[in-house]
Order: sequence, then structure tokens, then C-alpha cells
Amino acid sequence: MSEKIRVGIAGYGNLGRGTELAIAKTPDMELVAVFTRRDPESVSLVNQNVPVYKLDDIGQFQDKIDVLVLCGGSKSDLPEQGPALSALFNTVDSFDTHAKIPEYFEAVNNSAELAGNTSLIAIGWDPGLFSINRLFGEAILPEGATYTFWGKGLSQGHSDAIRRLPGVKAGVQYTIPVTEAMDKVRSGSMPVLSTREKHKRDCYVVLAEGASASEVEQSIVTMPDYFADYDTTVSFITEEELKRDHAAMPHGGFVIRSGKTGAGTNQVMEYSLALDSNPEFTSSVLVAYARAAYKLNQMGQTGAKTAFDVPPGLLSPKSAAQLRKELL
Amino acid sequence: MSEKIRVGIAGYGNLGRGTELAIAKTPDMELVAVFTRRDPESVSLVNQNVPVYKLDDIGQFQDKIDVLVLCGGSKSDLPEQGPALSALFNTVDSFDTHAKIPEYFEAVNNSAELAGNTSLIAIGWDPGLFSINRLFGEAILPEGATYTFWGKGLSQGHSDAIRRLPGVKAGVQYTIPVTEAMDKVRSGSMPVLSTREKHKRDCYVVLAEGASASEVEQSIVTMPDYFADYDTTVSFITEEELKRDHAAMPHGGFVIRSGKTGAGTNQVMEYSLALDSNPEFTSSVLVAYARAAYKLNQMGQTGAKTAFDVPPGLLSPKSAAQLRKELL
Repeated sequence: MSEKIRVGIAGYGNLGRGTELAIAKTPDMELVAVFTRRDPESVSLVNQNVPVYKLDDIGQFQDKIDVLVLCGGSKSDLPEQGPALSALFNTVDSFDTHAKIPEYFEAVNNSAELAGNTSLIAIGWDPGLFSINRLFGEAILPEGATYTFWGKGLSQGHSDAIRRLPGVKAGVQYTIPVTEAMDKVRSGSMPVLSTREKHKRDCYVVLAEGASASEVEQSIVTMPDYFADYDTTVSFITEEELKRDHAAMPHGGFVIRSGKTGAGTNQVMEYSLALDSNPEFTSSVLVAYARAAYKLNQMGQTGAKTAFDVPPGLLSPKSAAQLRKELL
Repeated sequence: MSEKIRVGIAGYGNLGRGTELAIAKTPDMELVAVFTRRDPESVSLVNQNVPVYKLDDIGQFQDKIDVLVLCGGSKSDLPEQGPALSALFNTVDSFDTHAKIPEYFEAVNNSAELAGNTSLIAIGWDPGLFSINRLFGEAILPEGATYTFWGKGLSQGHSDAIRRLPGVKAGVQYTIPVTEAMDKVRSGSMPVLSTREKHKRDCYVVLAEGASASEVEQSIVTMPDYFADYDTTVSFITEEELKRDHAAMPHGGFVIRSGKTGAGTNQVMEYSLALDSNPEFTSSVLVAYARAAYKLNQMGQTGAKTAFDVPPGLLSPKSAAQLRKELL
């Protein structure tokens, strides 16, 4: 091991780029290589001195990398890469297909355990930091209800759904938490909230030439699963406005636990994130957990793990004694 | 071991009573005994079936208790009881004299380590949950600033300071976070805030017979350390109003990390608590960590530890697989 924790990145999209930027802000980690399925020549990093290799060649780097950050998508990349790469490296990933987490955990655990590696899965803010706060909420206040609100944030899935419609040239969708619902939750009344009461959806659409605004609006607001159950507003904008005002990827949200102690005493725990860039924040979380993955492996704790298994202190570059002195 | 985790309580004031109430809300823990320095006959529990013993006799209960919750104060009780009782039991306590934590940690660690016990110290919300959020903030967003605001909450220390003044019959003090300062922090501008800009102090005072309101007000607002550096308001009320409107012990606060990723992208992480009863919430945190102390001990992880050392999953009565499925 060199003095710094040597980190590799597998996959260089928004998340890979954010991971490169996040590593640069740490005092104790260094990026040693980026791996891509594209032609390495075509990938241009922020720091031009870091080499880019073909993902197929990653097996040669086992003794040069302490932990590998998997920056592929949950749909098709990670289900393959997670189990395969955790056989070679300590890994951290942001697998976020909630329903498939148990199955993905098993696959990665088998492979990491056998190789003696440590793999942190489903790391980020949801799943991840939000999950931890859901857990703290119900463990500390067993009598109560937990509410998760998302936004204001750009939803990739819903934006894609809009863009697939005939008559739509381009567009984005923002998920907006409903303030009145959040205030009800904070009051301790433990309301039962419908889908429509919790979030609304704002769409900004560039029409294709000759398309009818009213027809496009109608097909958006009535789209099952995506929009029909929500109060949805559609605004039509120009391509220039889309580029100028909607290029960022903000997101965030709230986890609120409303509980009761003793004979009905109200207690409210709230966690919230307001992120100007979703991928840059998610990769900052990945990098802090990459540090923890490496330390857990040094401690002999191998196999797949989630944010629930990681003592918070391992996320910090500081020693336990320093943390007790400075942050407790 | 019985099927449930067997818990004892050492000290039955507000925190001990809250601990009794919190244990009653868990599915997997039972209160088996309360220990007091007072005459056990004089202590009346909420659940009359739980026996009360003299603290001096606690040594006879080593094989009957899985974890002991220390509910004494940080000033004089815990510095003695922490090291002494961690030699006999797994323990959890809310030691909160920030400056003395390293020294207290050493004393408890020596004693717990030697006995093979696990002792979680400085557990609660500050230190405790707030500490964890300060740590997450700087570990995930290394470029940034962390702000802790307290309140709205009743401050015991400041209330005591008022009550010691001549001319004061009774009184309470609330610490109030300044909304404008919090909004500045949330904006990402990373302001440097003075003591006065962060919190103000509201006092409700019952005058002694014949005392001068203006003299009392003057001696409060000019009191060094406690009030002189703050905007302080003093309201005079009757003894009946004090009892009717100020008997609860609300508290809470905010930990806000304002950070930047990449080339200056704003990211804000915020944690907040709004507690109608400070002691009932603190003891709910102690009980969740008592579960973790017991599990850590079963895993062979002995010695003193803080909230930084505890994997979140251990706070829950649920299994790791169930947590991954339900809460991730």
C-alpha cells in the first residue's frame, strides 16, 4: 500500500466524473486509474494525468488498487459488474433498484466473501443516507411513522418518459414535495397521505415542429404510473430555455420520523438534502464509503455490506481519538 | 439469557423514567430491575411490577442483566459510575461534558476492556445523533462548514443561573435558534456567525416578593458567559403561568453541513430534531444503543465505544436481511 488509499473508477459517466472530483477533495485518497468500456482514447478526465484503461484489462490491476468505485448503472451494468469485480477488488457501488437489493446482495456477497474482499452495495443518498435515517427513526421511536419525500429534483425516468412521447422534441421533469403534506407530518399528526398528496410533478417541454401543445399536455398528465396519479403541470419552453435553465441535475428530499414517547409525547426527527448536483453528491458519498470499505477490509470484515453495516467513524479520514475529541 | 434482552436502569430521575417508558415500547427488551441511591421504597416506577434495589447491591445482579443503562448526571454521577459499572455490566450512558469525553472514554475503556464488557458512552442526541451528522457532513463534503443550532429548547443550566439571582423566585430559559442565520447557512454562503447571530435567549421569570423587575432584568441580560453575548428577552410571569405553560422540557436543534463539490456546486445536508420532551427522547436513544451494546458484546467487540463506532443496523431489533429488504 502507498501512503494514500489507491482508488480506481469503473465507468466514466456523470457518476465517474463526480467520483474523480470527490477524490480530489480528500486528504487521504488518490485516483490511480479509470476503466471504461469505451475506447480509452475517447475518455477525457478532469485530471489529464490519470491513465484510462479498457475495463477488460482491469484484472491486471489487482495489486495497484485498494478499492474500486463502480460507477455503472443499476439496470444493466451493476448486476454483471458487481459480482464480477468484487471477486477482484474491494468495491463500492450505488445499486439502487430497491426491489432487487436482496438478490444483488447475495450475488456480490458470495463473490466478495470467497475472494476475501469487502464490497459496499447500495451506497448513495437513497438508498444510503436516507435508509440510515429511516432505520434510526424506527429504532429510536418504535411508535411512529416514517415519511420519505423526494425533491425538488430532476427525475431521469420521468424525463425519459416525456421525451418518448410523439410531439415532444425535448423535456425535463421535476418532482416536487408538497409543503402542506410535510407540515402535516411535522405536526405529529401522523397523516395517511396519498401519492397525489405527497408529490407533484412539473414538466418543461420543447414541442416538435407542428405538434399540438394541448395533445402533448393531455398525453403527459394522463400517462399511467408516471403522471396520472399526480398533480402535474406542463410548461412549454424553447430549446434555448431548456439548455439555459434546465441543464443542472438538482435533487434532494426529506426523511421525517414522527413518533411518540411515553404517554403520547410528540418527537420529530428530520433529515434533508438540498443538492445542486445529484451525481456529484452521490459520488461524494461513494468516496467516503470507499474509504470505509478499505478500512473494513483491513479489519478482516469481508463480504457484501450496506450502509447499515458501516460504523460512521470509518467514513472519516480522522482517527477515532481525533473524532471523539473534535466531533462528539 | 432469556429470550428478551434484559435491561437494568441505574438512577431513576427524568432519564431513568424515560428509559423505563422507552423499553416498554420495544419488542425485544425487558426491564428487569431499577437501581437507586435513594431508599428503594421511596421510588415509584410507572410499571409497579419491576423491582427497585439499592445501587450498592448491584454487584449481585451480574448474571441477571444483559445491559445496564446509566441514567445519572455527567457532573458527578457518571465520572464515578461509568468506570465502576462498566467493570460489571455492558453499559450505555449519556455523558455529555464535551471537553472531558476523551478522559472519560479512557477510564471506561480500561475498565470495560478488562472485564470483557462493552460500554457505549456519550449517547443521546448531542453528543450522539448530532455528532454522527457532523461526522457525515465533513466526511462526505470535505470542502464546507458545519453549523449546529440548538432549540427551541429549555436549557437547564441557564434556567439554574436565573434561579440563583436575588429577586428571582422561579424561572426558565429557552434557547432559540435565529431563523435568519439558519437561512443564510442553507443558502450555501457559508457565513461566519457570531454567538449573538446564532441564538437568542428568552427568559420567563417569577419575581420574589418586593423584588424590582428592572433590576432583575438588568442582572440577567448582563450576566457574563450565560446571557451577555446574546440578545436576551425577559418576561415576568406568575407562578401559576410558570406551572401551566413551562413545565414541559422541549428541546431540539439543527446540524447543517453546507459544502461544495466539483467546481463550486452547492450541497446542503441538514438534520433536525423537534422534541416535546428532551429526557424522553434522550432515553429512547439510550435504549436503542443499549440493544447495540449487547449485540456488540455478543460479537466480541468489547471496551468503550461511542456512536461513531456503532453500525446503524445494530440499533434495530430487525435482522440484517430484513433491514436490507424493508428499509434500504
